[in-house]
Amino acid sequence: MSEIIATYQLFGKPGTFEKKAEGIALGLTIGSWTDLPLLEQEQLKKHKGRVISVEELFDSRHPFRQNDVLAKVKIAYPSANFSADIPAILTTVFGKLSLDGEVKLLDLEFDSELLSHFPGPRFGIEGIRNKLNVHDRPLTMSIFKGVIGRDIDYLTAQLREQALGGVDLVKDDEILFENPLTPFEQRIVRGKEVLQQVYEETGHRTLYAVNLTGRTSELKDKAKKARELGADALLFNVHTYGLDVLQELAEDQDVQLPLMAHPAFSGAFTSSAFYGVASPLALGKLTRYAGADFSLFPSPYGSVALEKDAALAIGEKLTEEASVKRAFPVPSAGIHPGLVPLLIEDYGTDCVINAGGGVHGHPNGAAGGGKAFRQAVDAVLSGKKLAEATEEHPELKIALDLWGGSK
Amino acid sequence: MSEIIATYQLFGKPGTFEKKAEGIALGLTIGSWTDLPLLEQEQLKKHKGRVISVEELFDSRHPFRQNDVLAKVKIAYPSANFSADIPAILTTVFGKLSLDGEVKLLDLEFDSELLSHFPGPRFGIEGIRNKLNVHDRPLTMSIFKGVIGRDIDYLTAQLREQALGGVDLVKDDEILFENPLTPFEQRIVRGKEVLQQVYEETGHRTLYAVNLTGRTSELKDKAKKARELGADALLFNVHTYGLDVLQELAEDQDVQLPLMAHPAFSGAFTSSAFYGVASPLALGKLTRYAGADFSLFPSPYGSVALEKDAALAIGEKLTEEASVKRAFPVPSAGIHPGLVPLLIEDYGTDCVINAGGGVHGHPNGAAGGGKAFRQAVDAVLSGKKLAEATEEHPELKIALDLWGGSK
Repeated sequence: MSEIIATYQLFGKPGTFEKKAEGIALGLTIGSWTDLPLLEQEQLKKHKGRVISVEELFDSRHPFRQNDVLAKVKIAYPSANFSADIPAILTTVFGKLSLDGEVKLLDLEFDSELLSHFPGPRFGIEGIRNKLNVHDRPLTMSIFKGVIGRDIDYLTAQLREQALGGVDLVKDDEILFENPLTPFEQRIVRGKEVLQQVYEETGHRTLYAVNLTGRTSELKDKAKKARELGADALLFNVHTYGLDVLQELAEDQDVQLPLMAHPAFSGAFTSSAFYGVASPLALGKLTRYAGADFSLFPSPYGSVALEKDAALAIGEKLTEEASVKRAFPVPSAGIHPGLVPLLIEDYGTDCVINAGGGVHGHPNGAAGGGKAFRQAVDAVLSGKKLAEATEEHPELKIALDLWGGSK
Repeated sequence: MSEIIATYQLFGKPGTFEKKAEGIALGLTIGSWTDLPLLEQEQLKKHKGRVISVEELFDSRHPFRQNDVLAKVKIAYPSANFSADIPAILTTVFGKLSLDGEVKLLDLEFDSELLSHFPGPRFGIEGIRNKLNVHDRPLTMSIFKGVIGRDIDYLTAQLREQALGGVDLVKDDEILFENPLTPFEQRIVRGKEVLQQVYEETGHRTLYAVNLTGRTSELKDKAKKARELGADALLFNVHTYGLDVLQELAEDQDVQLPLMAHPAFSGAFTSSAFYGVASPLALGKLTRYAGADFSLFPSPYGSVALEKDAALAIGEKLTEEASVKRAFPVPSAGIHPGLVPLLIEDYGTDCVINAGGGVHGHPNGAAGGGKAFRQAVDAVLSGKKLAEATEEHPELKIALDLWGGSK
């Protein structure tokens, strides 16, 4: 019988969690059990939530209430109770429960039957590598900066600079929406021209992820139009729409573009230690299952930082063995070339090294910044310390002098 | 110039908030300012975020960090920066900021130009009252209970019992999805028959809100089908989809059914005191602007409880003066007839008194439970204490004996 297993973090008095867990398992499924006649128990058995485990962590006390301890509780919900879509799953496992005091949803385990209803990434890590013909190193990405209120010439000039630095990907600023100065379609068409020109000049191919925005029901048509116009990839603020909207874009046979999930707004439900959804589940597993080829999230190293455990766990969820393809982890925010050894240590080569200020803030401009990142990556992969590589790579030297090396 | 004003709650050292606020206002708009040439400043001025106020609350210290105080910061974002849709607004005002430490989005003020892009409730409080021809009292609602795994006869029998109690509305359990035992369309058709029968027997009209579920792109067609089949209203787990999806249902000329927003999953981003979105904004203002005719939320009185200030503020945001219609506050969870005086004191007559256990758990069954609620409402409105009304109302007496009167 297919089921989904939810893991929750609860706080309470030692010895109270079994009862609490039973209450959740029944309350979110058939409502009551012991007072039902045997015949009805038989009939409802296959719909009943089931407590799998209750693990009290006595050494992990609540910060305010010293008599309370943390517990991890696993509950299985029969798939017969919900349709195989993320809204139904979230409502079942964390609908009213999300409002019921200090409870955090840590993980969801889909069995193979349930997971077969989810597309996962259309391209995945291998598909993106094939598009770029880059197989043996982390990808590098840079982000448009300060483009609100600027015109298309400004934007394309910035795109050209970034591409000249040799980054593999450039993404729109997530706060750039439909606007008269740099309309969506024009960004695609003019961006493509610029990137083709750079390719002809340098032999380097950069892909541009354009921000897909607007009303929900218009997204598919906009995405199809983007593809017709030759867009490389779509950036998408999935958490302001809903994971199911991402999934529908990933599934659409007429869209077929790489999807880059941005974490905008996700901090609202992942940041608390006591409430909401753990970030490895939200930005890792569910974002992958719903079909993102890339998932951006705060690295542990910038000013907007995630705890290292969580940031690593997101990467794991995006790339661990599963029946859906793997998605690229994109640890972001506050990344500069000196952090490349740490990022590769954390995520291996199957990640995207993504920077904004660390590219644009380079004294030689965005082209210099991109080069410094590529040089740092090459140094690490050839087993060199960054400091050793600075002799032959002036851009890297300048970057390390400015931002420092790895901690 | 149109703009949206966001109010945030921050924590930090006294005297540090002006700089932090400037950083947010620039970081979420044009990126930099003082180092721009004058000509560019002129060009970008209309896109620049603007700090409106910074209010340090010295008496409100952080619970862990005794040197930190709470501040409320208001920032205006020009509407020129975003398209007039909720995903763009949330990304602008709380996109990456949601990931940037302890920051909570307390409120958003739409000016009239921006608000004109949002439909608000199609029916609103007056429209719903006209449908029911009930103008002078709070509405009463009851919820299906324990219907997972049950067949359509069980469900319709439960519906009949609830309607016989005289409640104005019955809503589906939010965890009831498309399933072979009680399919969506059958629930509508069979439910309608039962409610028509009760109307013919008693002269009382009960509306049934059926749970609209499934994949995002199928919702409109399902809603239209529901309307064709004569559905009265739709229940919708909006926060597992996205507010824009609710808005598209509200705007659709072919749907035109009252929409009841369920708070499932919303606790993930409203429960923390430090992170996420304040519940009056999420479950009150934005849910109303997006088009809900009813918004459910935890009352301050049940086991799943909200703080009283927040629960009252949700009601205010749903009903305060605005250019969109007013939506019904539906304080829920743990409601029994003894709480009716408190609820009317809190919300006035323009609210829905909604109960599950407080209806079904009545010793005379759901019909008795519904009657007790109606009797409690009538008593309060005629200026009586509940205890005085028990003499002529045995159902109310039984309920008060079981659950107690108002605190």
